[in-house]
This record gives sequence, structure tokens and C-alpha cells, in this order.
Amino acid sequence: MSLDDKAQKPHDRLAEALAEDMEAVNRLIRERMASENAPRIPEVTAHLIEAGGKRLRPMLTLAAANLCGYTGRYHVHLAATVEFIHTATLLHDDVVDESQQRRGRPTANLLWDNKSSVLCGDYLFARSFQLMTETGNMRVLEILSNASATISEGEVLQLTAARDLATTEEIYLKVVRGKTAALFSAATEVGAVIAGASDEQVRALYTYGDALGVAFQIVDDYLDYAGAADVIGKNTGDDFRERKLTLPVIKAVALADAEERAFWSRTIEKGQQEVGDLEHAMKLMAHHGALAATRADALAWAERARDALAILPQQPLREMLEELALYVVARIR
Amino acid sequence: MSLDDKAQKPHDRLAEALAEDMEAVNRLIRERMASENAPRIPEVTAHLIEAGGKRLRPMLTLAAANLCGYTGRYHVHLAATVEFIHTATLLHDDVVDESQQRRGRPTANLLWDNKSSVLCGDYLFARSFQLMTETGNMRVLEILSNASATISEGEVLQLTAARDLATTEEIYLKVVRGKTAALFSAATEVGAVIAGASDEQVRALYTYGDALGVAFQIVDDYLDYAGAADVIGKNTGDDFRERKLTLPVIKAVALADAEERAFWSRTIEKGQQEVGDLEHAMKLMAHHGALAATRADALAWAERARDALAILPQQPLREMLEELALYVVARIR
Repeated sequence: MSLDDKAQKPHDRLAEALAEDMEAVNRLIRERMASENAPRIPEVTAHLIEAGGKRLRPMLTLAAANLCGYTGRYHVHLAATVEFIHTATLLHDDVVDESQQRRGRPTANLLWDNKSSVLCGDYLFARSFQLMTETGNMRVLEILSNASATISEGEVLQLTAARDLATTEEIYLKVVRGKTAALFSAATEVGAVIAGASDEQVRALYTYGDALGVAFQIVDDYLDYAGAADVIGKNTGDDFRERKLTLPVIKAVALADAEERAFWSRTIEKGQQEVGDLEHAMKLMAHHGALAATRADALAWAERARDALAILPQQPLREMLEELALYVVARIR
Repeated sequence: MSLDDKAQKPHDRLAEALAEDMEAVNRLIRERMASENAPRIPEVTAHLIEAGGKRLRPMLTLAAANLCGYTGRYHVHLAATVEFIHTATLLHDDVVDESQQRRGRPTANLLWDNKSSVLCGDYLFARSFQLMTETGNMRVLEILSNASATISEGEVLQLTAARDLATTEEIYLKVVRGKTAALFSAATEVGAVIAGASDEQVRALYTYGDALGVAFQIVDDYLDYAGAADVIGKNTGDDFRERKLTLPVIKAVALADAEERAFWSRTIEKGQQEVGDLEHAMKLMAHHGALAATRADALAWAERARDALAILPQQPLREMLEELALYVVARIR
């Protein structure tokens, strides 16, 4: 291994280690996103799928399966399944959020219309269920159908929890599990299950995916307040302007006195924001240590992810997954 | 059996014969549409599910399973699965069509918003996959995941085929299979499969569901031109005004001369409709026998549905299904 390899991001090292499998996943994805009956479908799905994305979730499935000594071919099906579920939720999310851009390109709902995004998302969901059914593994089907339910539950919960100051850290965590962690943990868990791993290994890889997903999302929410614009590619304070109850705000609200509560109620609940409000919100967060506590939470989740892997075989893939957990929080170290 | 029973609609007779099972299906539906994490979900889904609907699809599953001698309990799961898939597609359809009313009540997208309809539909899809997975029957999973893919394919195809005079009867049939027949045929087929029926019986019940669904949809499209407003609860000519390529129009276009083609192109493709156009369209259809041919097609599909049952045990349930096939076209006899 050269120094150059060492300098690679863990994500790129994973991609390199799993290159052959990922090639098979990409082939399967292209094959299954087609539709001879409705040519509009591959147009819409290709627009999003070919735009790249990091293919992080399918790589997690492949890595988990390989790490548990799997020698079959169904991890490829499961990796494609996970990517299809992910893409379907993105198509629907962009309709729900009325988004204009995704992965640096105009969204499908903008290029075609909401209808196409809703229906092509449904198609990818159905295709994902076909793919997972082909594995013939009931436990895998349970895990992935449960994850799908958790994802949509989390999204609906986010809809209703938005702008509600009563949102607790517990509710936040449920939303985060739905938005992000449920598919991460399902991705790693099914990799272990299809490999016939022990219950202990399955649990370890579930915990890894779950904690990785939670850390990932908390970092995102932290950086929206703490990050410089050029690091995260969006402006600081977007979540504040969109009145989202993310972890830094939840922590600050929990410690707010009456006057501060009135401020949060005006800006987040009622949405009456004035010049200087974002700066005042940052000051309140600093005062209560809300950003520091959020950062500490993210680091703890990343640590939990890394530690979960301790019982797994000490192999390069395990190392890469460990590094990935630390890399997720590297931006906030 | 009293004379009164004889006078009942076949749908009501089925409901009566399957009352106990349907009670179990309704219990399971109520149980599984709940979400402790996201209370918005049962509100939205209950609005639609409790509004009634005919529960025709789950009854088809129950009837098929009972007719094939099934004595287990998983037909209840499958019937609930089928109703969840149906409800999910209705929620998404109403977003896609920007509908205002469904089953005599304002639609969910109107009462809440498009977001809730999209995400609650996704939730019901996921729940349906959980339910079918619980049966542990791989063949059932294949059938239902294939049906889900066909449904969304059909919907996307309808989106792109709309207003396109090149739409053939073959494309129309694919759309109809997606919109209606795919779930009908899956409903009856999985009932037979879960009962461990012979391949011949499974095929027969598949064919029944498929032909019933196609007949059902053709009748709808026929009545939109031929029916009196009070029979179908919508105005004659809605499809014309919405420029839909339904079977009567496709048949008339296929036989059109140059001048007639220009008329269809102006009214359907370009949407430039004037007073008297609907009447002229009806005249062209009459001239080419398009309505009569559409009606004949519907009757033939209903016949095909009824005939498919010939190899099944001669029981009251079979009779009711046969009557149902004829009842679907009774409105146009």
C-alpha cells in the first residue's frame, strides 16, 4: 500500500476494494431500472442514478457481506436494492420539499414533473422489492420491509414535528433514523445476514450502520450552524431560515428562559424572522453550549459505530469501515 | 336462500359469504395502518380507508383462497396487503391527477397536502411488503412485487401516452393492466397460491382477475361516452375534455380519414376544443362503430373471466365470482 493510498478518503478506498462487486451492482442497477413498457421511467431514474452520488449505501452492504466471508452473489442484489430504495426516497423527497437541485443538477420534478417523480419513485420501490425477493431470504425481506416503513414514518414525523418547539431529542432521533440511519443499518445488516453471519456479527453490523447514519445526520445539522459555507456547499443558517427543529436548536430550546423561548417561538414556530435573528440564535446556542453538545453527540455516535466493529475479523475492510466512521465526523473535529 | 338474497348484487353476496374473513381483514388493516411514531399517518390513511370503498380486491383474494380449499390464516394477510397497495396507489394517484374528491369526500392531498399523501402512500407500500413477507411464501412475494412494478409502469405509460394519437390498443391494454387489472389478477392469484392450488387453478384465477380488471376498466371508458350522467356519477365526455386516449377514441382514430384525423389531432393532441366537438366526436365514433366495438370488447373480457372459472370446484363462491364478472358489464348490456 503506497502513501498515496493512505491519503485516500476511506470512501475511495472502499470503492477500490469493492470495485469488482460495485461494477456488478452498477450493471444490475442499469438493467433493472429499465422498463420496456414505459420509456419515461429509465429517463427519469437514469437522470438521478447516473448523476453519481457516492453509492455509499450499496458499498456498505457489499463490505458487510464480504467482511462476514460471503462468497455468493446475492449481496449484489441487496446492494442494488438498497440503492433503489435510496433513489426512490430521493425522488419523493424532492417532490415533498419542492427541491430544485440535487447532486448539482436540476431535480426530476423540475425537469419533468411531480407526477413522473412520484410514479418513478414507486416503480423503483417495486423494483427493489423484486430484487430482494430474488434472494429468497426471508430475514432479509423482513429487515428491508421494516426499514422502508421506518423511512416513511420518519419522513411523516419530520413533516409534523417541523416548526414545533415541543420536538424532543427523542423525536429528533426517530426522524434521523427514518431519514438516514434506517437505510444505513439495513444496508449493513442484510450484508451480514446474507453471509450467514452469527447473531453477534449481525447485531454489530446493524449497530455500525445505525450509529454511522445518526452521526452523519447530526454532523449535517451541526454544520448548518457551525460550518463555513464553502465546506458544506450550502449557506450557514439554511435550517434556521427553513425553521427546522434540528439538534442544536432542540438543545438550546431545552435550556431557554422565558425570553429566549419567546424568541424561538417567534422565529421558528411563527416564522417571523428579522435581520440579526440568525446571529442572535447562534449567540443563544453558544450561551447554552448547544453547538458543543451537538458536536459531542456526533463524535460519540461515530465512536459507537467504530466500536461496534470490534468483534468482527480484523481485515482491511473492517479498517476501512472504522475509518469511514471517523471520517464522517472529521469535518467537525 | 331467499328471493331477497337472489336480488342482491354479487358484490354484496360475496361480502356476506366472506363476512367473517373480511372482519379479520378489517381488523388487520386498522392495526397495521397505525403508526405509534407518526400520528399523522393513521389520520391520513383512515380518512381514505374508513371512507369505505368496496373492498373488492381483498374479497377477491379471500374468495380465491376459500374456493381452493384454504384453511389457514394468511389469506387475511394477503387481502390486507392488496388493499394497502390499492390505497397507496389511490393516495399517489390523487396527487398525480390533482384530484379534489374521492369516494365522495375531499381527497387527502386537499385536506392535508401533497407531501402527506406521497409519504403516507409510501408508508402503506412498506406496510404491504411487511404483511406479505409475514406469509413466508416466496411465490406470493414474487407475484405481488411484480404486480407493484406493473402498476407503476402502467401509470407512467399513461402519463406519456396521454394525448398521443399514436397510442394503440396494445398500449391501451398495458395501461389498463397497470391501472386496474394487475392488482385484480394478483389478488386472485395469490389467493390460489397461498391455498396450495394446482398450477391449473392458479392460472385460472389469474386469468379471471386479469380479465375482470380489463372488463371493468373498458366499461368505465365506454360509459364515459355512452353512459347517462346519473349512472356513472360523472358527466359524459369527461375523458374527451381531459383529452384521454381511451379505447373508443383509439378505435375511432384507427379508422379515421385525413379530415377526421385532423379533428382528433386538434381536439385531443392540441386540446383546442370548441362547442359541438364532443357531439362531433360521438358522431365519428358512431360512424366507425367504435362504441359498439368497445362494448363488444368489454363483454368478451367479462365472458373470458367467467369462462376461466370453469375448471374450479362448483361451489357458491365460484358462482358469485361468475356473477361478478357478468355484473361488471351489466351496466352496458
